Amino acid sequence: MVDYRSSGVDIDEANQAVRRIRDIAQKTFNASVLSDIGSFGGLFQPDLGDFEKPVLVASADGVGTKLKVAFLANRHNTVGIDLVNHCVNDVLVQGARPLFFLDYLATGRLRSEVSTSIVEGIAQGCSENSCALLGGETAEMPGFYADGEYDLAGFVVGLVDRKKLIDGRTILPGDVLLGLPSSGLHTNGFSLARKIVFDILKFDIHTLVESLGSSVGDAFLCPHKSYLKPVTRLIDSTDQIVKGIAHITGGGLTENLPRILPIGMNAHVQRDKWVVPEVFRFLQIEGSVPVDDMYRTFNMGIGMVLVVPSKSVEDVCQSLVAAGESGVRVIGEIVEGDQRVVYDS
Amino acid sequence: MVDYRSSGVDIDEANQAVRRIRDIAQKTFNASVLSDIGSFGGLFQPDLGDFEKPVLVASADGVGTKLKVAFLANRHNTVGIDLVNHCVNDVLVQGARPLFFLDYLATGRLRSEVSTSIVEGIAQGCSENSCALLGGETAEMPGFYADGEYDLAGFVVGLVDRKKLIDGRTILPGDVLLGLPSSGLHTNGFSLARKIVFDILKFDIHTLVESLGSSVGDAFLCPHKSYLKPVTRLIDSTDQIVKGIAHITGGGLTENLPRILPIGMNAHVQRDKWVVPEVFRFLQIEGSVPVDDMYRTFNMGIGMVLVVPSKSVEDVCQSLVAAGESGVRVIGEIVEGDQRVVYDS
Repeated sequence: MVDYRSSGVDIDEANQAVRRIRDIAQKTFNASVLSDIGSFGGLFQPDLGDFEKPVLVASADGVGTKLKVAFLANRHNTVGIDLVNHCVNDVLVQGARPLFFLDYLATGRLRSEVSTSIVEGIAQGCSENSCALLGGETAEMPGFYADGEYDLAGFVVGLVDRKKLIDGRTILPGDVLLGLPSSGLHTNGFSLARKIVFDILKFDIHTLVESLGSSVGDAFLCPHKSYLKPVTRLIDSTDQIVKGIAHITGGGLTENLPRILPIGMNAHVQRDKWVVPEVFRFLQIEGSVPVDDMYRTFNMGIGMVLVVPSKSVEDVCQSLVAAGESGVRVIGEIVEGDQRVVYDS
Repeated sequence: MVDYRSSGVDIDEANQAVRRIRDIAQKTFNASVLSDIGSFGGLFQPDLGDFEKPVLVASADGVGTKLKVAFLANRHNTVGIDLVNHCVNDVLVQGARPLFFLDYLATGRLRSEVSTSIVEGIAQGCSENSCALLGGETAEMPGFYADGEYDLAGFVVGLVDRKKLIDGRTILPGDVLLGLPSSGLHTNGFSLARKIVFDILKFDIHTLVESLGSSVGDAFLCPHKSYLKPVTRLIDSTDQIVKGIAHITGGGLTENLPRILPIGMNAHVQRDKWVVPEVFRFLQIEGSVPVDDMYRTFNMGIGMVLVVPSKSVEDVCQSLVAAGESGVRVIGEIVEGDQRVVYDS
């Protein structure tokens, strides 16, 4: 006789986990959320009061192999923050504010203390971004994931009025590139970083790295930063001054800046304009990584780039500093070209 | 020297795959889609013309271990259809029509012909449901998935006017349960089904099962059915007649019907009212699976249940048949109780 439990899936434990997750998620709910999370679909009635032409902006992302670092550290309450902040930044760059978030958590066997910890991180990320955790799927897939491992993906939907959409279309030569500091590796480049630290250096997750002033685990797991508060404050307080925004994710400045460049323009980046954080210098030196590979793999200390007219640089910087984002730097400018990044040092 | 390619990630091949995926996705675009898929977020401007209070309905789902069957069969163009139809049904049950869909595809190494095949299935599912494939994430995660394996999750956003929301609130004793036929296992119960067929019976994916008239692979991979067309036609042609809809997914009738039952009511299901398809009888017999486990694991031939007033049954059935859904059956009724399913045979 074969029942579902003996096939590796425990519906009762799964139901308990769903209840716990629902309780955590409900703390992120606001007046727009119409349903609790037990329904088939999550219900969200957006406040469209002042919108002329509401545009939904949606993005899907994962945490990537940063998860492997979380497994090694047995620390599961930060990857959810990574995921939410990554997704929120991806809709923010088009001028949108997040409305709601859904997660997909897949695991070999549901370990309830781990799944609770993961969802608590997701809920914390949602709360910090004023975004409802509207639903999600927790999939128990025996024989799919190694014991104690899981994958985690997220989906966010944001809203922007069409006239306030930021898409890089008005970018012109002479516009300035402003870099906002990252908090560390964010969620990209972990396949390379892990290879250097664990395979080449033979460090373990607890190894204290003197130049970093922390363990490998602490340095690598520092959560992906959300730029929502300073950037929305800036967008609200200025009128169409921000022409384009790039979220510096997988592919680094080299691959992400071209995503907002109009035809006929290059981004001219001056690498001597900011100090590359120690974690990237450490990885570059220890892995003998070519500099071009560094800049197309890691964010190198710049997590988001804003394109603004040169005459507005001072106002923009003041607004960002007032919102607590003090590390903003001019890192280059727009020049004529063919939709590439050109580095001059 | 370590570069990103030697760490197991090939950004150039990934970029090629992204371009192929974009071309496939663009075929699903409609006038509401403002961006192509290369932007950070996908942009969708819904037509809110006649809506008084637009409500967004969102759902996240995976394909589960049905993927293992696709791996064995080396057939990757149907799991995307499964995923989209599963998600679409989950928002349909609340009265919503899908606007757009995003996917998350995670794999150990990106095999471009496989990822293309998967995304073609997703795009086919989206087209069949008049839903834009607005974006997605393709994650290459070396050392995470077994060679040739992947995980696939999806996320759908639908729209419904608040006054047309279907939520089961008006369900009363005496209302009738109408069952719509499933096309097979849909996307649930595959851990148990695989255990019976591959572990106990030692069949392989190509084994011809006489009672099924097909190979294991063909029987198991039959795509999850979308109920969008007949059910939206029904909703449009009647006024608030459909009181509740349940999508029969993981947990079967036993776990899914209670999700729409108001306090104080049971769903009384008469199992002699429909013929359980051969694939479920085969699994039950060969696995000696207790009948209760069958009904809380598999859909048993009923993929969706509508709750309607008894006086409307004939009209509803006529509408469904006119929309091509000819297999509708009365399978029970609402009675007083405590939000459970009670079977009487």
